[in-house]
Amino acid sequence: MESYDENIYLPSVSVDAVIFSFQNGELKVLLREYRGGLKRYGLPGGFVGMREDIDAAAYRVVHEAVGVKGVPLFQFHTFGSMQRYHRETMAAFLYANNIPYTNEHWILKRFISVGYYALADFSKVTITPGHESESCDWYDVSQLPEMLWDHTDIVIKAIEALREDIDSKLLSVNLLPEYFTMGELQLLYESIMGKTYIRSGFQRKMLSLGILERVEKKSTGQAYRSPYLYRFMPKA
Amino acid sequence: MESYDENIYLPSVSVDAVIFSFQNGELKVLLREYRGGLKRYGLPGGFVGMREDIDAAAYRVVHEAVGVKGVPLFQFHTFGSMQRYHRETMAAFLYANNIPYTNEHWILKRFISVGYYALADFSKVTITPGHESESCDWYDVSQLPEMLWDHTDIVIKAIEALREDIDSKLLSVNLLPEYFTMGELQLLYESIMGKTYIRSGFQRKMLSLGILERVEKKSTGQAYRSPYLYRFMPKA
Repeated sequence: MESYDENIYLPSVSVDAVIFSFQNGELKVLLREYRGGLKRYGLPGGFVGMREDIDAAAYRVVHEAVGVKGVPLFQFHTFGSMQRYHRETMAAFLYANNIPYTNEHWILKRFISVGYYALADFSKVTITPGHESESCDWYDVSQLPEMLWDHTDIVIKAIEALREDIDSKLLSVNLLPEYFTMGELQLLYESIMGKTYIRSGFQRKMLSLGILERVEKKSTGQAYRSPYLYRFMPKA
Repeated sequence: MESYDENIYLPSVSVDAVIFSFQNGELKVLLREYRGGLKRYGLPGGFVGMREDIDAAAYRVVHEAVGVKGVPLFQFHTFGSMQRYHRETMAAFLYANNIPYTNEHWILKRFISVGYYALADFSKVTITPGHESESCDWYDVSQLPEMLWDHTDIVIKAIEALREDIDSKLLSVNLLPEYFTMGELQLLYESIMGKTYIRSGFQRKMLSLGILERVEKKSTGQAYRSPYLYRFMPKA
């Protein structure tokens, strides 16, 4: 069994991760259902080791909570309002994980949480619920279940951060096949930005970013009617 | 005397602020010299009250450390590597502030720090060193003195964040007089971005942002040779 003894983890600090993926034209986020008495949803998250960098803690926690490895995490915001503090929920967490309750348990105190987001390639990532989780799965960002603490706010803020960074992040974390059409790229943008684009304007904007390279069409019988294929330019 | 008793502040968490201003064509940052045995420079920063939002803590700490009030702070990054932890420096901090030393003092433990930045109007802001500070003053970002902990890294990361946000942040926090020339705006951009722009290209880029409004020239004898004046458009 996992140990939650005092002096293993840094007091007051947690990390939470918002892992996005793109599937069937929808932006998804990876949530877990907490175990036992909690029976509610939340982000993969956890505590920071006493001598562990917070970035390293985020990678470890994502692996432990939902089995995800090797997906780059980007820190985007730290959540530290008093409103996010619910001692009762943390007491339920202790109970659900068979951690002996004491009035002064460090887990019952106030935490601020450092938020990270990630873009995962749905076809390559495997998810496995960790010891604190009943299950984990992908959920449409437009239909999130009720979540514990301020985790809904954390997802909303992560979407804002992703929207601001989209041009650079899509280049570094490709969610599309190596070769894709402008229409496929537009669908991805639309699912992340939560709005539709006019085709001609979208194409012009994308080409002006200087991150796309048009490649030869494959020679098929129907080549004359098939759309152009693109790929992201290799980094300089 | 300020109290540093346990249970007043949240363990493990601090806030630090990088306050920029623009003066004589140079980007400046507000630093303080620590008191007593430390005799070194650092950012205005401090601890988070046990029941205080981290944003509120940042505003309070900036006021206490350097006397600055009413300047909007933007959270940009949280610093949490193990390398920033120097118990010896914190011991010197205790000594410099006449705080009784104990081996287990909470201040001697590891902290992560939530970083905020601000853009202050040099002509409107008054600075006053707080009780932990020997002095405080504006320093050229290109000539920073040696700083404690990872504060040089925090300034560098804040400049990166400011550069990414510059178009929107200059609109919300005006560092120029109400009416300004394109040349004055270019100088401000150049000092923040750390590079020079070609005049015609800069003007075209600025006008394309849709945030500037050209105003009537003042009627002076030399109006025919004076440059156009602009102002930031009022928010919609």
